[in-house]
Amino acid sequence: MSQKERAIILLSGGLDSLVTLAIAKSYQLDCHALTFDYGQRHIAEIQSAKRIATAFDIKHDIVTLPTHLFKNSSLTDQNLKVPTHQTNIPHDNQIPNTYVPGRNMLFLTHAVSLAESIGARFVFIGATAVDYSNYPDCRPEFYEAFNQTISQGTKAGVQGTPMTAIRVHTPLLYLSKQMIIAHGHKLGVDFSLSVSCYQATAEGLACGQCESCLWRKKGFSESGVVDTTRYG
Amino acid sequence: MSQKERAIILLSGGLDSLVTLAIAKSYQLDCHALTFDYGQRHIAEIQSAKRIATAFDIKHDIVTLPTHLFKNSSLTDQNLKVPTHQTNIPHDNQIPNTYVPGRNMLFLTHAVSLAESIGARFVFIGATAVDYSNYPDCRPEFYEAFNQTISQGTKAGVQGTPMTAIRVHTPLLYLSKQMIIAHGHKLGVDFSLSVSCYQATAEGLACGQCESCLWRKKGFSESGVVDTTRYG
Repeated sequence: MSQKERAIILLSGGLDSLVTLAIAKSYQLDCHALTFDYGQRHIAEIQSAKRIATAFDIKHDIVTLPTHLFKNSSLTDQNLKVPTHQTNIPHDNQIPNTYVPGRNMLFLTHAVSLAESIGARFVFIGATAVDYSNYPDCRPEFYEAFNQTISQGTKAGVQGTPMTAIRVHTPLLYLSKQMIIAHGHKLGVDFSLSVSCYQATAEGLACGQCESCLWRKKGFSESGVVDTTRYG
Repeated sequence: MSQKERAIILLSGGLDSLVTLAIAKSYQLDCHALTFDYGQRHIAEIQSAKRIATAFDIKHDIVTLPTHLFKNSSLTDQNLKVPTHQTNIPHDNQIPNTYVPGRNMLFLTHAVSLAESIGARFVFIGATAVDYSNYPDCRPEFYEAFNQTISQGTKAGVQGTPMTAIRVHTPLLYLSKQMIIAHGHKLGVDFSLSVSCYQATAEGLACGQCESCLWRKKGFSESGVVDTTRYG
């Protein structure tokens, strides 16, 4: 077997990042996971990311970000209430208060720096534009622009070809939760490793009521895959 | 289980299109395959496409193109010799004589028309830029431009959002043959259904000598997946 190429995977500990890691692993990439501690309420996600990295037997770094940058989001600010239910998210133009300003761009910039330093041309993020389409940093246009930026702003981008330059890959971008779960199931993913809940307990038990729990439940139901989520 | 969304899959009968179909199916998409008869020498590919469509139990149309458009390619012109070996393809700037002028654009245009007429937002093609990087219509830039074109040139593109508009998906674009085979294996693909050889027999037996056979052999060897290709 030939030498494996390297990849950086943004691993939040949620279902989408778990499936994204499974995709990268199925390409036989040598994966290096990155998780960020940005003062998110759902610290259970970080525990979940650790469990996932251990299960996949991959390198895993946890980077702490300056939390004072992330205010005005219900995911980081205890004074804001996490919505328990939101309907028609893809149909109106409101950005949910669970949006964390500039988050994905900061995550990706760290990942690209690491990629360039260890010689990886793949950076994976499990962003999806379908279910949560009002997050500005989950839109296809954001990733196209970001890839343009790194092709201009890295040595590998300026000197390389499209096949050697670093690129952010978003394999879930156009997929519904149903499709993501079905694909992950086919790849043999153990979904119980992941936590999606915005207010999970320290032990990783999900509330079953928040926006994120409801999307996850709906995805399992529609895909016909057994829901192994651990509810509190 | 919810209603399945529709997808058009360009199915040549080769290994890459087989894996691409398996990916689309794993998303639980309702797949409709399109194969083109463009006077290619390796007519065994069309038989292989039929076998694959039957195995996956999906709709399958074979479209005959005006073959006089495709001269100057060793794949369609009996007067040109198919190369038996080509080294360093990704490193020089020569376009192999197996390139068929404008082929993928013509295939995709048919697929987009069908997609718009049956209400599919996904069009899949198994193009890969890594091993055959000198085919102009296998480069990322081509697909980015084509997607821009259909977003401007279709009703769904002009009226829709990025999540409802028709888009060409190239899940293999940045993957090596090794990665494609490993991913397909994980999805349960039966590789013996496909024919990659540029001069396969009518029964679908591969020569084992041509450029395409050598890339395929190398991919199996590097991935560690058992090569079930039928050689003559």
